[in-house]
Amino acid sequence: MRGKQDRPADQAGLRKANLALILDLLRGHGQQSRAQLAGLSGLSKATVSNLVSELEVRDLVRPAGIVAGRQGRPGMLVEVQPRTVSGIGLEVNVDYLAATAIDLTGEVVFECRVPGDVIALGPERLLDQLAELARKVLAAVETQGAWTAGITVAVPGLIDPATGVVQLAPNLRWRKVPMADGLAGRLGYSLARITVDNDANLSALAEQTSGNVVGVTDLLYLTGASGIGAGIIADGVPLRGAFGSAGEVGHMAMDPMGPYCSCGSRGCWETQVGLIALLRAVSTHEDPVRDPALDLEQRLTIIRARAERGDRRTLDALQQIGSALGIGISILVNVLNPAAVVLGGYFATLQEWLVEPARREVAARVLGPDAAGARLVPSSLAFNAASRGGAYAAMRRVLDDPTLAPVQTAEATEAPA
Amino acid sequence: MRGKQDRPADQAGLRKANLALILDLLRGHGQQSRAQLAGLSGLSKATVSNLVSELEVRDLVRPAGIVAGRQGRPGMLVEVQPRTVSGIGLEVNVDYLAATAIDLTGEVVFECRVPGDVIALGPERLLDQLAELARKVLAAVETQGAWTAGITVAVPGLIDPATGVVQLAPNLRWRKVPMADGLAGRLGYSLARITVDNDANLSALAEQTSGNVVGVTDLLYLTGASGIGAGIIADGVPLRGAFGSAGEVGHMAMDPMGPYCSCGSRGCWETQVGLIALLRAVSTHEDPVRDPALDLEQRLTIIRARAERGDRRTLDALQQIGSALGIGISILVNVLNPAAVVLGGYFATLQEWLVEPARREVAARVLGPDAAGARLVPSSLAFNAASRGGAYAAMRRVLDDPTLAPVQTAEATEAPA
Ligand SMILES: [Zn+2]
Ligand SMILES: [Zn+2]
Repeated sequence: MRGKQDRPADQAGLRKANLALILDLLRGHGQQSRAQLAGLSGLSKATVSNLVSELEVRDLVRPAGIVAGRQGRPGMLVEVQPRTVSGIGLEVNVDYLAATAIDLTGEVVFECRVPGDVIALGPERLLDQLAELARKVLAAVETQGAWTAGITVAVPGLIDPATGVVQLAPNLRWRKVPMADGLAGRLGYSLARITVDNDANLSALAEQTSGNVVGVTDLLYLTGASGIGAGIIADGVPLRGAFGSAGEVGHMAMDPMGPYCSCGSRGCWETQVGLIALLRAVSTHEDPVRDPALDLEQRLTIIRARAERGDRRTLDALQQIGSALGIGISILVNVLNPAAVVLGGYFATLQEWLVEPARREVAARVLGPDAAGARLVPSSLAFNAASRGGAYAAMRRVLDDPTLAPVQTAEATEAPA
Repeated sequence: MRGKQDRPADQAGLRKANLALILDLLRGHGQQSRAQLAGLSGLSKATVSNLVSELEVRDLVRPAGIVAGRQGRPGMLVEVQPRTVSGIGLEVNVDYLAATAIDLTGEVVFECRVPGDVIALGPERLLDQLAELARKVLAAVETQGAWTAGITVAVPGLIDPATGVVQLAPNLRWRKVPMADGLAGRLGYSLARITVDNDANLSALAEQTSGNVVGVTDLLYLTGASGIGAGIIADGVPLRGAFGSAGEVGHMAMDPMGPYCSCGSRGCWETQVGLIALLRAVSTHEDPVRDPALDLEQRLTIIRARAERGDRRTLDALQQIGSALGIGISILVNVLNPAAVVLGGYFATLQEWLVEPARREVAARVLGPDAAGARLVPSSLAFNAASRGGAYAAMRRVLDDPTLAPVQTAEATEAPA
């Protein structure tokens, strides 16, 4: 059915959209003259000049020297002002907290990861730790002279994006945790600028904007952590489902009478290819890779070392998990027909041993030649994808509406309320 | 990334969109005055009058009497002219061919189904029979004084919509069949007005426009025939995937070491819940329900009768298939989070015995309460959904661009080239 959204927007909306368009073109194409921006945008030179002036006043773009023009007349170049504004992404996962800040060009200006036993902490103390981490990022960003567009928190679970409540996160053993409220209160930060989203959705966004599949419009990102979730992008748009819980692929019933899962069902994909299944499969009881006091990276480094020296138990376990990974992916490819399936988390860390067995199952089980065009692509961001995507989502507010950036006076920069 | 599509369309595009909008409002709201249409559309009364005149000249709307206006001034009502134009849908399936024609209001003006052994016929003879069926529909529509917007053919397989070639249809045992070309040639009908699409996609469209889930924006339609396919609508838009082969859910690997499937893989969902699996499960070798000479409806009627009188073998088989159906649906719901899963084909015909066991598995295996909001809804269109959707898709050409309708002279109506 056709609706009112098909008709042209009003003047104010059009102006915001045009400001956003110019900013996007400068982010994508680097330094440009006003004439070049007019050519790229299809807008008139007068309109472009006017838009660029407004972006300059809001300190989002800056002059960038002079270039010879077509008719010999020199043109002033402008470029994105990188360090005015930051987007901050935080991630809560079973084994760690992570934070990323990016600037307006998408460059990472701060990144860190803190190991932690999030289940044992419980929601309240976790929120205390997360607020502490957020303060550290905010301080680092402020030191660089930037204000923050917002904070987006990635959580492995079902989120209500309107309220920022984590409805259900089986791997964290959380139910109805008011994440946005809790963080805003602890930080004294505007609730309107804090959003919460699913870790897999945010990771998919990170891959699409700065990872190995930039510009791919149909893709699937798989988290490879304690929980297995998918961020789905279909025809360029995130697929969230009717009630926001699409992508819960860790709970696909791969073995209906199999072992119990954290969700209460049996034989879910997570019980086969989740991080805990990996740690169990490669080790016996006293093995240090099962030691929760060790950082996840250290445990995966031990597994890598064993695989590299040809340890039979490790290689067999990785082969078996790779096959189970491929069987699940074959289901997702038959359903969604993505051009790329990005393997995140430990799937990327251990890619040398997991990708080949996975690819074999996908090739054998997907209808159509060449896995219907789907490539398996290990993530280049691995465990940083979710907080990177969060930072990008937070920045999106200003990218979509540059008038949110405060008008700069001759005096000091003031952050918006 | 933002692109040029965000800017307002050109004048001609805007006029087409506005003509389409007025036509859509009349289809949705019934008889309206020009003033009412202005209110509904947000366009000026002068613009609406002009648009209505053009639709009248093209015989797509007609005067419909007089209504008292607000200021006491009477207003002329207009309504959709139902019988000017027809959309024709054809369906090719393993056991039958089907045809549907609808008028501009969406009402069915012709519908028929012909049993046939499509595998045995092979593509060439099948195309002969399909052309014969198409001639019958075209003649019926012409008798009613209408011209045809186009013909859309539903096929259970991977289609290249740009060329109308069926790339792969495992259940028909077809590979690279030039369906659109073959039909256009046999009919002497304009190739530009023949499209081919996947049966599940078209069925989903039919359900969304005239079935049990009108207006639901996130839904899944499951064909319940020899092949099991899904038509996916996400956020109001058909999800086709990167290369058009999304929805091949019949080949989800439910039992990786299970029986071989027509696609060459093992343990696909189709081997558990496809029509052939049903017929095998409810019968022994000599049973009439396995007799391909009987029409599909007759065979299903026999199965229904046995279930109704409590036949143990039949009830056990239906219970088991219902559970396997539910396990597969639980996977799809975890991945896609639809608001409704429409059960088509024999799943609808035998709903009394299949839906409950399916619902139990879905409730137990979907993450989140109440199956994350997904309802199981038997189709009201059953085996007519795909050709009904085809008819709607064919009509869509004129609904999207009413200027395709020929300007009527005082003389006889001429069909467009
Ligand atoms: Zn589970
Ligand atoms: Zn198969």
